[in-house]
Amino acid sequence: MARKSSLLKRTLASLCFILALYAIINTFISSTATLKLDRSFPFSSANSVIVSDEFSSQDTDLLNSSGKSLSPVKIYLYDVPTRFTYGVIENHGIARGGKPVPEVTDLKYPGHQHMAEWFLFTDLLRPESERIGSAVVRVFDPEEADLFYVPFFSSLSLIVNPIRPATGSDQQQRKLVYSDEETQDAFMEWLGKQDYWKRNNGRDHVIIAQDPNALYRLIDRVKNSILLVSDFGRLRADQASLVKDVIVPYSHRINTYTGDIGVENRKTLLFFMGNRYRKEGGKIRDMLFNILEQEQDVIIKHGTQSRESRRAATHGMHTSKFCLNPAGDTPSACRLFDSVVSLCVPVIVSDSIELPFEDVIDYSKIAVFFDSVSAAKPGFLMSKLRRISKERILDYQREMKKIKRYFEYTDSNGTVNEIWRQVSQKLPLIKLMINREKRVIHRDGDEPDCSCLCSNQTGIRARL
Amino acid sequence: MARKSSLLKRTLASLCFILALYAIINTFISSTATLKLDRSFPFSSANSVIVSDEFSSQDTDLLNSSGKSLSPVKIYLYDVPTRFTYGVIENHGIARGGKPVPEVTDLKYPGHQHMAEWFLFTDLLRPESERIGSAVVRVFDPEEADLFYVPFFSSLSLIVNPIRPATGSDQQQRKLVYSDEETQDAFMEWLGKQDYWKRNNGRDHVIIAQDPNALYRLIDRVKNSILLVSDFGRLRADQASLVKDVIVPYSHRINTYTGDIGVENRKTLLFFMGNRYRKEGGKIRDMLFNILEQEQDVIIKHGTQSRESRRAATHGMHTSKFCLNPAGDTPSACRLFDSVVSLCVPVIVSDSIELPFEDVIDYSKIAVFFDSVSAAKPGFLMSKLRRISKERILDYQREMKKIKRYFEYTDSNGTVNEIWRQVSQKLPLIKLMINREKRVIHRDGDEPDCSCLCSNQTGIRARL
Repeated sequence: MARKSSLLKRTLASLCFILALYAIINTFISSTATLKLDRSFPFSSANSVIVSDEFSSQDTDLLNSSGKSLSPVKIYLYDVPTRFTYGVIENHGIARGGKPVPEVTDLKYPGHQHMAEWFLFTDLLRPESERIGSAVVRVFDPEEADLFYVPFFSSLSLIVNPIRPATGSDQQQRKLVYSDEETQDAFMEWLGKQDYWKRNNGRDHVIIAQDPNALYRLIDRVKNSILLVSDFGRLRADQASLVKDVIVPYSHRINTYTGDIGVENRKTLLFFMGNRYRKEGGKIRDMLFNILEQEQDVIIKHGTQSRESRRAATHGMHTSKFCLNPAGDTPSACRLFDSVVSLCVPVIVSDSIELPFEDVIDYSKIAVFFDSVSAAKPGFLMSKLRRISKERILDYQREMKKIKRYFEYTDSNGTVNEIWRQVSQKLPLIKLMINREKRVIHRDGDEPDCSCLCSNQTGIRARL
Repeated sequence: MARKSSLLKRTLASLCFILALYAIINTFISSTATLKLDRSFPFSSANSVIVSDEFSSQDTDLLNSSGKSLSPVKIYLYDVPTRFTYGVIENHGIARGGKPVPEVTDLKYPGHQHMAEWFLFTDLLRPESERIGSAVVRVFDPEEADLFYVPFFSSLSLIVNPIRPATGSDQQQRKLVYSDEETQDAFMEWLGKQDYWKRNNGRDHVIIAQDPNALYRLIDRVKNSILLVSDFGRLRADQASLVKDVIVPYSHRINTYTGDIGVENRKTLLFFMGNRYRKEGGKIRDMLFNILEQEQDVIIKHGTQSRESRRAATHGMHTSKFCLNPAGDTPSACRLFDSVVSLCVPVIVSDSIELPFEDVIDYSKIAVFFDSVSAAKPGFLMSKLRRISKERILDYQREMKKIKRYFEYTDSNGTVNEIWRQVSQKLPLIKLMINREKRVIHRDGDEPDCSCLCSNQTGIRARL
């Protein structure tokens, strides 16, 4: 009996040992594999590095069952002269009474709706281990890169001077004044000399010009690149398009509403606060003021940017059911993102607006759209809004809650990752165009050779 | 001592038991996870199902560290009436003296350069476990689908009748004659009734029309869809484009050259065999015949399709350094793919040619391009070819060897997978357009609203 029991024990022990060994080996192997897979998760396997990698890569671990490379989209961050990055921040400070600093790279970007250029730049500067879920990985050898990021702070450069620079004859004064124009020209001179810029005529470069007027002197020279812009208000169809470029959101400046969905604490039906007078499409604003000023449950106020007005806007957006988003000088406005994070249903009156991340966001689920002709008809807009049920408003709010992370630049899985994902999606077409241009036949006098995607059949028809 | 040993044994046994339990649980969990991850490998994580999945998916295992869904691109295969698939094969047989068959689904597609429609259809019919490395996964519930594949054999339908159908008054004869036109119309009638077709005006549908004349009656009604075509020779810019559509290769009809790279067994400098007389861009053929017929080391022969001429073409392509690829009635020709699998460097004289998979294939590395004006100058083409070194030819051959799997429809990691990868890359822009059309403002009389990618700066300039 004792021998039998001992034999049983020994058999059990051996079995356990084998199992344990298997457990340890297996656990080790799978966690290694998982680690490798994890790195590949956020990246599109559908990118064009496949061919070259497949033939040159030593990294056979990173090949999947079909032999395809799982390499991420590789981006090279240009080491641009600090004049074009931190130097712009310094000048922005100096123009507001600040002093030059000993180490410009210690400077932080001033809070602003055009902060995308800061967030994207600093994201790429972070160690790769902190860039979780990013669709692009930074490479330090340009030869490896699929794409090239050029981090010129073009939007901040535009507003360094609160007003136009003085043109007086006082040399001393002129020297101190910052010139966006000069900076743009110096930037282009620098960029134009870069070998990788010349290699594909800039097609594989990513350039940010978030303010609709940013880089205005250079657009024709950088139009081959993937542009990160807020809208196409100042850009012609041959300069920018939904196919080539990425629409990026403004940083919201209103605090995120942290409460739950609901209409009980939102007594105001429609809220707007902002500049009444705007050019071009923004002329609708004055018309809307005339129509809406006398309406019940509507707060519509003319106001310019200040700490006080931002406080009032925050209160208004957090306590209203709908927030009016009329066009500004150009179709986009940061108010849309303020509305979304406030869970205040955007009422968009901007006929040519383009919206960020529209492949993953169905804006008809979070916003109400009016064409400007209909919106300018007395009574039309308000009667439509009054007919929207509480349940429908809650649906809009629910959807906004789901998608608002896309508009949070500071969210580790927010705007920055989404912009890179959008950029990485451009790569196949960019690679196609680069390869195609090496062999395509052109004749002098040919029309530009364009590939287009057109929309002319559906959508909201304006009632003229 | 005995007690001590027993205690030790019991402790060991318990430890082993715990380890074993851990092993089993861990192994189970990781293999489940690995299985799921494996399925996600070939698929782009950068697709637009992210939002909806994230909010509705129960499948939390399929979320990565950043919370993004790893769902593949999901494609629904329409169960079209057999009239539009196997029925076309049957009619093709009948028109050549065959008999109706009891079970049409037993039929195999006749060997032909337009076999893509057969390979794509049968690929989707295979069990998912055999579809290794595919960028799309078939779903059986259309509600889950990102894209919809419509498997009408439009190219075979076009050539069911070797000649135009009889128009005599003999009713019996007319009844037997197949009509591509009628089939196209019946197909459109069927497609137009499908709810998912109507939902997004066909934008998320994938339709194959490989022969440049296939579906010619319907193109304007299916132009919103992703079209799989050989070239844009018969298509206007508003019907098809590199942005929306996918260029698919013809099936090569010459056997693959299985030998190594080298020029020793390739005594002929330039080879061509095919129809001398073609319309439109193909008029270059007759000019090239006139120039090249008298050249040394050149074999240029007029020939039409037959078993005999295919044997001669195989021999010619396998024993020549360069193979001429002039435009046909439309810019593309199956000869290009015959050349590549023959390791015979293609000499492409076709100004408007579009090439398959150009995001991953740099054709300037595998082929020589001449604009037709230069190629038609006596002596020009031959003097250029004669100056190409042996080393350069070996480079071309080496590259062809690397990429030829892209032109092998029967390779499990060949053309079919690559076409699906190209299709899946269209999804973000398709989703964007679908979402955008729900809210975009149109005015009657507006110009079509187009997003384009243009090329007008580089490439080979024609020397007029």
